[in-house]
Amino acid sequence: MIVADQVADVRRAIRDARYRNLPIGCVPTMGALHAGHASLIEAARCECRFVVVTIFVNPTQFGPQEDFTRYPRPLENDLALCRQAGVDLVFVPSLESLYPTDFGTFVEIEPLSRVLEGAFRPGHFRGVATIVLKLLNIVQPDVAYFGRKDFQQQLVVRKMCREFDLPVEIRTCPTVREPDGLALSSRNRFLEGADRQNALVLSQALFLAERRLKAGEHDVRAVCAQMTQHMESAGAAVDYAAVADPETLIELAAPIPDMIALVAAHVGPTRLIDNLPIALEHRP
Amino acid sequence: MIVADQVADVRRAIRDARYRNLPIGCVPTMGALHAGHASLIEAARCECRFVVVTIFVNPTQFGPQEDFTRYPRPLENDLALCRQAGVDLVFVPSLESLYPTDFGTFVEIEPLSRVLEGAFRPGHFRGVATIVLKLLNIVQPDVAYFGRKDFQQQLVVRKMCREFDLPVEIRTCPTVREPDGLALSSRNRFLEGADRQNALVLSQALFLAERRLKAGEHDVRAVCAQMTQHMESAGAAVDYAAVADPETLIELAAPIPDMIALVAAHVGPTRLIDNLPIALEHRP
Repeated sequence: MIVADQVADVRRAIRDARYRNLPIGCVPTMGALHAGHASLIEAARCECRFVVVTIFVNPTQFGPQEDFTRYPRPLENDLALCRQAGVDLVFVPSLESLYPTDFGTFVEIEPLSRVLEGAFRPGHFRGVATIVLKLLNIVQPDVAYFGRKDFQQQLVVRKMCREFDLPVEIRTCPTVREPDGLALSSRNRFLEGADRQNALVLSQALFLAERRLKAGEHDVRAVCAQMTQHMESAGAAVDYAAVADPETLIELAAPIPDMIALVAAHVGPTRLIDNLPIALEHRP
Repeated sequence: MIVADQVADVRRAIRDARYRNLPIGCVPTMGALHAGHASLIEAARCECRFVVVTIFVNPTQFGPQEDFTRYPRPLENDLALCRQAGVDLVFVPSLESLYPTDFGTFVEIEPLSRVLEGAFRPGHFRGVATIVLKLLNIVQPDVAYFGRKDFQQQLVVRKMCREFDLPVEIRTCPTVREPDGLALSSRNRFLEGADRQNALVLSQALFLAERRLKAGEHDVRAVCAQMTQHMESAGAAVDYAAVADPETLIELAAPIPDMIALVAAHVGPTRLIDNLPIALEHRP
């Protein structure tokens, strides 16, 4: 496994892989890898003979009050996981190599980046889209892999790649959950004491919405209110609980055949997000 | 010469050129080709064995009051010029293929896109950067060619390519002028009657600034005032007359060894721009 911290070294390795006609897969991450990331790497290995993982905690996607400095950076563990998973190249760039001092070029994605997560984290998706574009331009993969856990992120990335005509395919892989339902997240390691148990209210709220909607509930706003209520009952501070169109993220008032339920809440000091696709069966 | 209006056809031709190991050069244009464009194509032919010209009048770089609809579109002449110049592939995309209805992804470049042209044409460089990024992603050239006539544009494109880590080299080719000094521009064909003669005040103002600064003038603002005065003397409505740092476009108060003088003015109904690099000789 190659570990590179320079753009030029990545380009050289990629040129070599291209020369050997190896399909290239890329899994962009912020490190602190867990079984969710491992499932992305596995998906990449199934399709691509050369698998790149990028590890970079991207400052431009964090707000000034957010957890950039305390975001976990367990690099040795991450490299061990990558090695075990059969990754070919890990790119661990320095901050300076990706963001020189006078950096000022950003991707803006309207209106998708303004709603839900974007409304609570202004500038977040601008930062996400910008770093993903940079990494895709450096690695130039045939396929890039993202988790459905960050549902809005993969929508933003898909829209960017489509509208900027990037020659890459985006795959979205299912959320990996703990046995009790908690969606895997690098931030779960911040959940201390009762917070770990209380964090279950996010996935519980989503499963509750799924049950209600599949049982024929027509008042989507009432379902969202129930999700909020459930999360607040355990002391979570809710940012949003929504049921939306999975393409546009426009919030729904009435059910449609394919929906996505999304929640964000603070559990103790830790902000968590989760989502669940909800498909109604056709009832003739 | 291949003429393609579909992205998929361009990608196929490019894949073929790559397979044959041909270096690929790209000259992005809005058509209405003249000897300035021909010099870009010639520069591309010298370096690259596969030369692509794109012809697309890009709506997102025009303001609502600007000349998008009346911008010239002499496609048959343009194709003849390309054929004559030895171009391998001309890409003439439709509006719909590059901008589908819900298009909303843009490149923002700070602070370079806010000054000079950007101050008078809000959103202009956002549109330029976005279309150039799209075209570079479709053509994936090794080298792309731009004219120095649009000085700020090539700076914006260079900054974008550098900061987005695009694997392309940008070349800037000298401005081509009429024998009397007028910089070639697709908009020159709008100059009717006395406007053609009056348009000379732009280049004259630049040469005036060059003479004054090379003669040792230290008051750059006085030089700019003289440029403005010269252009206004022929009835031109001046947007700006500036002497700036050629990297940052920050306007200068005192001379530096390498400068760029830039002007923009309306001559009759036609808005024209021009610029001139001014290098002071080292005086020990």
